[in-house]
Amino acid sequence: MSSKNVRVISVNRSVFATNDRIAEETREQMKRDKTFFVNVMASPGAGKSTTLLRTISELKEEFKIGVMEADIDATVDAEKMQAAGVDSIQVHTEGECAMNAGMVKKSLESFPSEEYDLLFLENVGNLVCPAEEDTGSTMNLEILSYPEGDDKPLKYPLMFSVCQVVLINKIDTRDYFDFDDDAVVERIHALNPDCKIFFLSAKTGEGFDAWVAYLREEIKDYQA
Amino acid sequence: MSSKNVRVISVNRSVFATNDRIAEETREQMKRDKTFFVNVMASPGAGKSTTLLRTISELKEEFKIGVMEADIDATVDAEKMQAAGVDSIQVHTEGECAMNAGMVKKSLESFPSEEYDLLFLENVGNLVCPAEEDTGSTMNLEILSYPEGDDKPLKYPLMFSVCQVVLINKIDTRDYFDFDDDAVVERIHALNPDCKIFFLSAKTGEGFDAWVAYLREEIKDYQA
Repeated sequence: MSSKNVRVISVNRSVFATNDRIAEETREQMKRDKTFFVNVMASPGAGKSTTLLRTISELKEEFKIGVMEADIDATVDAEKMQAAGVDSIQVHTEGECAMNAGMVKKSLESFPSEEYDLLFLENVGNLVCPAEEDTGSTMNLEILSYPEGDDKPLKYPLMFSVCQVVLINKIDTRDYFDFDDDAVVERIHALNPDCKIFFLSAKTGEGFDAWVAYLREEIKDYQA
Repeated sequence: MSSKNVRVISVNRSVFATNDRIAEETREQMKRDKTFFVNVMASPGAGKSTTLLRTISELKEEFKIGVMEADIDATVDAEKMQAAGVDSIQVHTEGECAMNAGMVKKSLESFPSEEYDLLFLENVGNLVCPAEEDTGSTMNLEILSYPEGDDKPLKYPLMFSVCQVVLINKIDTRDYFDFDDDAVVERIHALNPDCKIFFLSAKTGEGFDAWVAYLREEIKDYQA
């Protein structure tokens, strides 16, 4: 299909207040504290919590882990993390569609990051706003799942540009969805050539070893 | 699990500029023109385009249909709609995470709504921002899919409060996902007692007749 016949109009976006300075301060403080801070982003239902729970179970003997759960409302995710035996706090964003660096900083007043070797932020489920806000993270992680489709890097290019790592989740549903692995890798690398991409299933554990081994090495390098 | 042990902190949201006046003007104009305007909202990958394409194929002999495709970037969806034989326009939001009434109004300068009996807006894929902006629509439609999980009304209550209709999509994947139909209906109705809910598969067509019959009657009542 050609795009010749499609008219395109652009409408202006609001100006987002920059929070880069606060983000940089958080990143420097975390580096001094040797806290590796992972900002986990994804669509609703892509499997953020399930992926975190499996990652935590693989690493919790080696590292002291904390989880900040950001949601518009509800405390279900923080409860799941506590049940898994790690410290967690629920952050309510009161309608905001993403965490920014100021919100992270305020949350850390109640949840001191220096106590942790590895801190996860489970951001609000959304492929737009979280990509626009630097949280001060050490690593930006995006989880894309098979049911969402392999065209998402085309539609949400900023998200796939700001990530260091993309996990392609729910590969156990491969017989149900037409998801082209090669196409998604090509689309992500066109935006972000250095992005690490892992195919896995947080439900079955398939493909998880490579992701966990990679994260372990990144943390060790960072803390060395 | 009890939530007693979960600490909750709230961070302030920005003030969203109200666009209710523009939305109301659009709604009144559409009513005069007898254009039924459906604002389609969902997570990325929930099946908005596939659902629209099947709905259009069922109704295009009866109604003159137009589609406004809103995306951060890309024109793939507008191309699909044109290939299906309906007029469409691609709106680029330039980073904005939802269409608001002003953006709809500007888009309608290039895509006159009075030419259509039925106008769809495929909003940006997101369960947060689109719920906050009145677009001037006649009907707000949310599509939730089985892979996303039945807990989404708990996490995105505003979205499920502002819709007149929720379509639960991808029911053909029922053997793959633990999705509790009764629970999701209960959760939606707790927020929004009058919400109409249809279970269907845009891929196979299962359950589609009831949805299309309902939409047809709503349009006829509106235009009478």
